[in-house]
Amino acid sequence: MVQHRAHASIDHVVAAISDPTRRAILDRLARGPARISEVAEPFPMTLTGFCKHVRVLERAGLVRRTRRGRDNTLELSPAPLREVARWVLQYEQFWNDRLNRLHDFFANEKEKSQ
Amino acid sequence: MVQHRAHASIDHVVAAISDPTRRAILDRLARGPARISEVAEPFPMTLTGFCKHVRVLERAGLVRRTRRGRDNTLELSPAPLREVARWVLQYEQFWNDRLNRLHDFFANEKEKSQ
Repeated sequence: MVQHRAHASIDHVVAAISDPTRRAILDRLARGPARISEVAEPFPMTLTGFCKHVRVLERAGLVRRTRRGRDNTLELSPAPLREVARWVLQYEQFWNDRLNRLHDFFANEKEKSQ
Repeated sequence: MVQHRAHASIDHVVAAISDPTRRAILDRLARGPARISEVAEPFPMTLTGFCKHVRVLERAGLVRRTRRGRDNTLELSPAPLREVARWVLQYEQFWNDRLNRLHDFFANEKEKSQ
């Protein structure tokens, strides 16, 4: 059961970051918390459309929203990305193995041509 | 334009790995190439349903399919995960910062209580 819940959570997190607007919102919040209207400003969409993206990020646990005066403040909550990083980095050895094989191949070719 | 194409590609890759079945297929192929029927066997779904997942992985460039005899062979193609790792790891400092702040907090509390 715990295993299943852990999967459901990483599914939401990964789906949340599959959209370039949502990744851009996180990149903006990585520079510090900001009011929602301020974060929304550079995006070519309505505030309603923008807020839908924010809700997806909130549900994935990647963004925290707090009321401060009349405007809401958004803050990055990066912890769920850690599990994504852990999964993806299992594959790091494969890039390195491939790079090592390419290196060996070219080293061999060079040796043959001498 | 190049920037846009790069985004489209990482979107497909991240969407592809947002599904637990597709992550499990990659985890299986990380142990080595295998015939499609062999990879499909432990999954509780029809071969048609399984092949849909494989096609999503192929389109994202994460799996390569080669014909060998009557059955197709699937092989891991991990390179596209590298860009995902690069994006996610930008956030590593935030986990570390948070862990450092927690460490400082408990160190201070301990000092105060002595």
